[in-house]
Amino acid sequence: MTQDLGVYQTNYRVLYGDVDSMGVVYYGNYFRLFERGRAELLRQRGLGYKEVEERGFILPVTETHCHYYQSARYDDLLLIETRVGLVKRASVRFEYEIFRGMEDRDRLVTGFTLHACLNPSGRIVRLPEFLLQLLNGRKE
Amino acid sequence: MTQDLGVYQTNYRVLYGDVDSMGVVYYGNYFRLFERGRAELLRQRGLGYKEVEERGFILPVTETHCHYYQSARYDDLLLIETRVGLVKRASVRFEYEIFRGMEDRDRLVTGFTLHACLNPSGRIVRLPEFLLQLLNGRKE
Amino acid sequence: MTQDLGVYQTNYRVLYGDVDSMGVVYYGNYFRLFERGRAELLRQRGLGYKEVEERGFILPVTETHCHYYQSARYDDLLLIETRVGLVKRASVRFEYEIFRGMEDRDRLVTGFTLHACLNPSGRIVRLPEFLLQLLNGRKE
Amino acid sequence: MTQDLGVYQTNYRVLYGDVDSMGVVYYGNYFRLFERGRAELLRQRGLGYKEVEERGFILPVTETHCHYYQSARYDDLLLIETRVGLVKRASVRFEYEIFRGMEDRDRLVTGFTLHACLNPSGRIVRLPEFLLQLLNGRKE
Repeated sequence: MTQDLGVYQTNYRVLYGDVDSMGVVYYGNYFRLFERGRAELLRQRGLGYKEVEERGFILPVTETHCHYYQSARYDDLLLIETRVGLVKRASVRFEYEIFRGMEDRDRLVTGFTLHACLNPSGRIVRLPEFLLQLLNGRKE
Repeated sequence: MTQDLGVYQTNYRVLYGDVDSMGVVYYGNYFRLFERGRAELLRQRGLGYKEVEERGFILPVTETHCHYYQSARYDDLLLIETRVGLVKRASVRFEYEIFRGMEDRDRLVTGFTLHACLNPSGRIVRLPEFLLQLLNGRKE
Repeated sequence: MTQDLGVYQTNYRVLYGDVDSMGVVYYGNYFRLFERGRAELLRQRGLGYKEVEERGFILPVTETHCHYYQSARYDDLLLIETRVGLVKRASVRFEYEIFRGMEDRDRLVTGFTLHACLNPSGRIVRLPEFLLQLLNGRKE
Repeated sequence: MTQDLGVYQTNYRVLYGDVDSMGVVYYGNYFRLFERGRAELLRQRGLGYKEVEERGFILPVTETHCHYYQSARYDDLLLIETRVGLVKRASVRFEYEIFRGMEDRDRLVTGFTLHACLNPSGRIVRLPEFLLQLLNGRKE
């Protein structure tokens, strides 16, 4: 059971296709941004999620939560910050904060996703050593 | 502060455009189904969400949660069940369960959305009487 | 090379998640409605697209076109009409019209999708007899 | 009636949320990439689409076409190339090519979008001088 302090950043420019008729990003679309955030975290730590799958492990989302403070609008440049939360024997939690702007950092949304670790036949398995190292921020 | 017992049902057939490369509905797409569920609840109670807005109130999502038990797959016919949860002075909670199939009712997903009540200028206001009645299941 | 006259209908209620900040359905979201239309056509003719795949054939889109006449808005109940267009040796074309309302039939959008017939290893193959019959409107 | 030669580039990393169960980007999702491409072209020429709207003009899509040659897959880094096509009195056409990879440039998709020029009340109007200059590649 470990916790990591590294925060990973990636950007996203809001499209017309992301907003609803209130002119703000549709509440369900932030989960794509969460995916973008955790994919970038893994990649920056040296192993993309694609490689995780190729090594025989999948990490489906079993639970998610999102708290909306302010609205992202069309053309906003968003900053997505992702960190690894609690890592357990067979699960990992990613935590997200989304800001508008790079400097003044107006906080819009926070959330988390919880992931189980499965083998290809869908059975829950322990997180393998290479994933533990990756999630704990140590490159192989 | 009231709670309602009525459960409203609507169906949805899973498209190719809903599933990801694992062949299952993308985790962020269930929030569209939640929207479908609560829109249908309001409509069946006699006043669509569009009319709510036309009367000068909006109900943006401030928080959402989803727990994934099993995966919906391409071409599955889903059953979305929606009920009104806790109704407070200036907020309302909707609760959702999504099942595969109409009869055996294999439970896939549960979740909730919490909504604030705002006036058009974005200020939090009390739920108006017509909305309280609607949410409590009494037609005007 | 054959052409079919049967028109298949299905409905769709516009969600918040479908519209953009102009309050109209995002131009890229009509392609989901086209998918809904052709899936329904196949199902009503007796064999869902899932079964087509299970028999070892896939029908990926190779070309698509859409002409937008009027805008679909939030909460509109849309009518999607789909017909089989030109059926060639190894391809099939589906044609779509989308209307607002069931009766006055305000035409919003027309379009087509062109599909190749592939085997599971991705090689272009002749449309098999069961698909030709299906597309020509004769049940097996 | 003018034509422009400048080609504008932007990148996009494919998410799980973009692909369907064949493991390839859903055919309707390329239209989001087209939007990303034309938004970037306008921004790089000095005036975002948001500012176009603020000056009282909207450019809704009236027609679109897409030709699919090869499939984009999960985690692919795509290159979107956008150019201005034919500019008429009250319409403009954008043309797109999408490649996998930055160097070998495997061409996946080509397409176009045609846009009318409307004033805020929805009437077709001539492209204003500042837009003509922008589309012809001359900064104001």
